[in-house]
Amino acid sequence: MDRRDFLKKTGMAAAAVGVGASSVAYAGSTIKWKMVTTWPKNFPGLGTGANNLAKLITEMSGGRLKVKVYGAKELVPAFEVFDAVSRGTAEIGHASAYYWKGKVPEAQFFSTMPFGMTANEMNGWIYYGGGQKLWDETYKPFGVIGRPAGNTGVQMGGWFNKEINSLADMKGLKMRIPGLGGEVLKRLGGTPVNLPGGELFTALTSGTIDATEWVGPYNDLAFGLYKAARYYYYPGFHEPGTILEALINRKAFESLPKDLQSIVENACRVVNQDMMAEYSARNPGALEQLVNKHHVQLRAYPNDVLTQLRKLSADVAADLAAQNKAAKKIYDSYMAFLDASKKYSRISDLAYLNARDAG
Amino acid sequence: MDRRDFLKKTGMAAAAVGVGASSVAYAGSTIKWKMVTTWPKNFPGLGTGANNLAKLITEMSGGRLKVKVYGAKELVPAFEVFDAVSRGTAEIGHASAYYWKGKVPEAQFFSTMPFGMTANEMNGWIYYGGGQKLWDETYKPFGVIGRPAGNTGVQMGGWFNKEINSLADMKGLKMRIPGLGGEVLKRLGGTPVNLPGGELFTALTSGTIDATEWVGPYNDLAFGLYKAARYYYYPGFHEPGTILEALINRKAFESLPKDLQSIVENACRVVNQDMMAEYSARNPGALEQLVNKHHVQLRAYPNDVLTQLRKLSADVAADLAAQNKAAKKIYDSYMAFLDASKKYSRISDLAYLNARDAG
Repeated sequence: MDRRDFLKKTGMAAAAVGVGASSVAYAGSTIKWKMVTTWPKNFPGLGTGANNLAKLITEMSGGRLKVKVYGAKELVPAFEVFDAVSRGTAEIGHASAYYWKGKVPEAQFFSTMPFGMTANEMNGWIYYGGGQKLWDETYKPFGVIGRPAGNTGVQMGGWFNKEINSLADMKGLKMRIPGLGGEVLKRLGGTPVNLPGGELFTALTSGTIDATEWVGPYNDLAFGLYKAARYYYYPGFHEPGTILEALINRKAFESLPKDLQSIVENACRVVNQDMMAEYSARNPGALEQLVNKHHVQLRAYPNDVLTQLRKLSADVAADLAAQNKAAKKIYDSYMAFLDASKKYSRISDLAYLNARDAG
Repeated sequence: MDRRDFLKKTGMAAAAVGVGASSVAYAGSTIKWKMVTTWPKNFPGLGTGANNLAKLITEMSGGRLKVKVYGAKELVPAFEVFDAVSRGTAEIGHASAYYWKGKVPEAQFFSTMPFGMTANEMNGWIYYGGGQKLWDETYKPFGVIGRPAGNTGVQMGGWFNKEINSLADMKGLKMRIPGLGGEVLKRLGGTPVNLPGGELFTALTSGTIDATEWVGPYNDLAFGLYKAARYYYYPGFHEPGTILEALINRKAFESLPKDLQSIVENACRVVNQDMMAEYSARNPGALEQLVNKHHVQLRAYPNDVLTQLRKLSADVAADLAAQNKAAKKIYDSYMAFLDASKKYSRISDLAYLNARDAG
């Protein structure tokens, strides 16, 4: 017998339950969800963001919807998270959309693009600029809903064993840089290598690779990358505001009552902001340690390298758009939003940061 | 009889309520909260943010906690919002902390500072950098809890009837610019004027003031300020990431069950991000209209003006810190976080935006 019938049969109308009822947490049965993730359990920032999402849903629902987190490989391997949520093995996942490029190339737009939007611009596009609608269309055939649930902010360009003084220094460079950033490096004459995070340190030390990107000061310090690479640390162009996504099985979501649906949606939004806030707070302190304690040398790409990186990034995005009609539609929306945001940034964020920094 | 007694007396254990119970919304009594705001009802961005906060709480709680929004003057005048929440006339308010500077000067740090932190940096400081603890201490004597619940991002410097080509042009300038930004203008030899938004258009047209700041393209376009000022629009320095706050009566908050407390806290976080996303989406389009349709001229302050603005902004912040011990403590925390963030921005946001913009 479900609760509705019980209330009807006992003649107990909702309104008659009595004053003070709101002061006890809801005592109905518990729905249990499994969350699969592409991160090692408790991985700082990303994995803890997934934990936070599960905790918030459980907490706001007063325990009516309990979410249990599984790290990569605990229930399914990292790169099977999408399929696991699609077929309902798990009701929810935590990942990033560019991991599914083999299956859905255009999903990459909902993660990050080289020389693309920042975290705040991505949120503007997704929540108010039509991005979410396009994302929904993209995942619909798989029975999955995607929602922003974390952002790393501007990622660092990476760790190099030598200085990059010209385009010639990029030629032949063996660098761990996945995704579209890797494609850009390839077109510059470098060799992009894809390695899991756990192998970066050894690969750098042994000289298997000359350079690697990872995330930013907070994660890079924890990984000890400053000990592996000979000290040169460069700003990034390839992941300017990477969205981490919550993947939700559509049927599981739709079977929830409206208030729990709202709680799930809004928990994703909370984590989306919270992860960005955590990185905003932890990266500056980690950078201070890297520079002052570990004597890491900060460098910037020379202008001719930046110019080529920008040009090739635009090419790579256009090639992605050419893959299919859906990709073209998303590309057009993304680029229009990016173009307007760049112009606005010139009198807003960029103008302000330059003015503040000149002092 | 309260619900707990009822369940006990009827021998109905929580676990026995039955499978499927989670699929009906909680049917207990309703708690009703009043929300007073410093904004005109439905004012774009700020007032709609307050509406959104009320809606989210109501929705996530399945109607157990219903929040009704009152615009400025509907229940109390705009600048009595803090007192109204403090004495419990309303359980919650939506405002910004710098409005209470007459009562609590140091509250201004939780709003925005000239040449201070951006929206993401403020979130880093508040959520992960000790800012929230300081804010709690600041409002504790008043029985009020403050939480971030919206951000405008970098505000524009404003509308001017003449170009600013040197420091001499700032002397004698009558400008609507409230708060610490106004104090900076005063020290430059200008005359800060405080006027409510509704009077800006007439004051500019009649020549009562020479210039005004307001918010940014989205709000400024809606106000028609481009028709009043002779076209010169400048980037801002005075409000680089203004936090809108939710003010919550502590007793009302503490009387809520834990799940509703979590819902209130997290609804504030959702609105905090959502307002920033709305401005990120609407400002670029509004700027395009201002420039292309209304032929607004974008200008930048010359370097000697910026240098003075920076210097005087630092003085004004130091003077605020000197007002009392609490202000000094918050100032020290704020400035340490800002200093580290500025250094990080040089290889992160600022480096990236400059690299992206050069193309």
